[in-house]
Amino acid sequence: MQTKAYAAQSAAAPLGPHTINRREPGPKDVAIEILFCGVCHSDLHTVRSEWPGTQYPCVPGHEIVGKVTGVGSEVSRFQPGDLVGVGCMVDSCRTCSACQEGLEQYCDGPVGFTGTYNGPVGGGENTLGGYSAAITVDEHFVLKITHTENDLAGAAPLLCAGITTWSPLRHWGAGPGKKVGIVGIGGLGHMGVKLAHALGAHVVAFTTSPGKVADIKALSADEVVISTRPEEMRKHAGGFDMILDTVAAPHDLDAYTALLKREGTLALVGAPPTPHPSPAVYNLVFKRRAIAGSLIGGIPETQEMLDFCAKHGITSDIEMISMQDIENAYARMLRSDVKYRFVIDMGSLK
Amino acid sequence: MQTKAYAAQSAAAPLGPHTINRREPGPKDVAIEILFCGVCHSDLHTVRSEWPGTQYPCVPGHEIVGKVTGVGSEVSRFQPGDLVGVGCMVDSCRTCSACQEGLEQYCDGPVGFTGTYNGPVGGGENTLGGYSAAITVDEHFVLKITHTENDLAGAAPLLCAGITTWSPLRHWGAGPGKKVGIVGIGGLGHMGVKLAHALGAHVVAFTTSPGKVADIKALSADEVVISTRPEEMRKHAGGFDMILDTVAAPHDLDAYTALLKREGTLALVGAPPTPHPSPAVYNLVFKRRAIAGSLIGGIPETQEMLDFCAKHGITSDIEMISMQDIENAYARMLRSDVKYRFVIDMGSLK
Repeated sequence: MQTKAYAAQSAAAPLGPHTINRREPGPKDVAIEILFCGVCHSDLHTVRSEWPGTQYPCVPGHEIVGKVTGVGSEVSRFQPGDLVGVGCMVDSCRTCSACQEGLEQYCDGPVGFTGTYNGPVGGGENTLGGYSAAITVDEHFVLKITHTENDLAGAAPLLCAGITTWSPLRHWGAGPGKKVGIVGIGGLGHMGVKLAHALGAHVVAFTTSPGKVADIKALSADEVVISTRPEEMRKHAGGFDMILDTVAAPHDLDAYTALLKREGTLALVGAPPTPHPSPAVYNLVFKRRAIAGSLIGGIPETQEMLDFCAKHGITSDIEMISMQDIENAYARMLRSDVKYRFVIDMGSLK
Repeated sequence: MQTKAYAAQSAAAPLGPHTINRREPGPKDVAIEILFCGVCHSDLHTVRSEWPGTQYPCVPGHEIVGKVTGVGSEVSRFQPGDLVGVGCMVDSCRTCSACQEGLEQYCDGPVGFTGTYNGPVGGGENTLGGYSAAITVDEHFVLKITHTENDLAGAAPLLCAGITTWSPLRHWGAGPGKKVGIVGIGGLGHMGVKLAHALGAHVVAFTTSPGKVADIKALSADEVVISTRPEEMRKHAGGFDMILDTVAAPHDLDAYTALLKREGTLALVGAPPTPHPSPAVYNLVFKRRAIAGSLIGGIPETQEMLDFCAKHGITSDIEMISMQDIENAYARMLRSDVKYRFVIDMGSLK
């Protein structure tokens, strides 16, 4: 099926119009017309070959919301017209213990999970992502979207930014009676604030930007701390059950481990291009604290998060762009000049 | 009570004979004749002022085994003649949540727990440790020793090396069906191997010394891996539920985080004088792994460990020295030339 898309032809080339082939739905496939696609920093890392292994032409995009246009003969959970989402994964081995537990993001299969873009599919081909008019995906990796039509565009970033914060918040027990910190209030962090608040935690947002305090409180943060002010930081020493750190730039982790309670966890979801300063071991030893990592989230927990968000009216705060504006959006994203996520209106591709 | 001891008069001075005062037992105190005292690397760090705040004269020693010689009027759990132990702590606030939970090592009181030596006791005085003929300790911090008389000297290192490895092994679930790594087979690590094995785990010891393999297997390690051989390390990738790292020298943590299963923990019990190379975040993110710290252990779990060891006939492998040999023992300890712990026969002080 010939499909309009936007692709990078090389690491140095800007994205531009391109035509790709999508497979006809097999027995277990769902064919989806893409309505909206969020813009994730991973898209840029991949198209610019800032991470190894990009295959060109490269079509990024893994925060996909759309409408089912057709289903295979064995598909039972979806039918044409359904609103659906596709996140960071379109396949995994399905048989390892991680997959069996619904944690496909930690798939132990030969190649791990298959990314929605630039993931190997055999025969030298890599997957092509959501900057396109349509996509065909195995129903196991298709999510139901129950948000209202008006909230559809804002739901797109839930498929990556939402689940990447939801999974660690749930895993480390964010909820009533817990004090949770969110470091870095961008695409991921602003979702972390909203989700942790809705889960019932007392939410403290950390930012380096005094000018953002009012905006961040409006997201539902109970408190906002300017992380460059030591006296503000000290007030929270030993106070947090968990801190979710969404900052991918190298930074001082000790400033945050020192704020954890005994047995608290600093959960990292950003992988810096160069290492963080080495964290102090005594900060861990003296309170049995931990520094851990977390990767997106599994399919069942993604559905749980989407249902939770629909019920609580939670979406990402977005700025809508047309496909043709993508390079400008990338430039602004690099300056953190977005509140808080760009979403592409795929209607612009027609 | 005038008591013979060995003390350092300054950071540069060798330890030598010294006379100290021990308090008469108060209502809740236990007076103890010290029979044996283990030699911990912390002793050396403290007497040489390698850690901040050493007050001189300094009497180190916190792996104490002895016999009760007198008890205060309110002491119910001990009587003269009982065999007892004293570890790294002789007091704590007793009221914070950590103390209430029996995790006095994480005491949140104004000064935390009071160390058995060089811990502040008010009035400008610091505690004096186990390189002495006697000590008076509040019964809360006195442990029952049920080892046989022959095993008493070997039980002394359980009070620090034993509990420092027992606490994380228990906290992170070492037991049947679990694969546990122990990094660094010295005073702490050799106890980690013995305890993890007795707890029922499959134990893999990591060492840089090919010459030590047979000795380490004899400790009850199921496997020994030479950590400088990449092909041996790779065989264990993703295989460990937990790895207990006892090495205080800076080293590559990534080599061990890569060996953890999903959600596995690398537990650090040594704090390096200069930072470890910064650990790779992606090793944590891709399997939701953690790097955590752990500090000695609480009083209830120390008693649990001592009872477990007595029941299973577990002691430390020791080399007995006289008090007068301490400086030579320190020199050998610095060269890791001891299997695996020096213990001072306090009879030599008479």
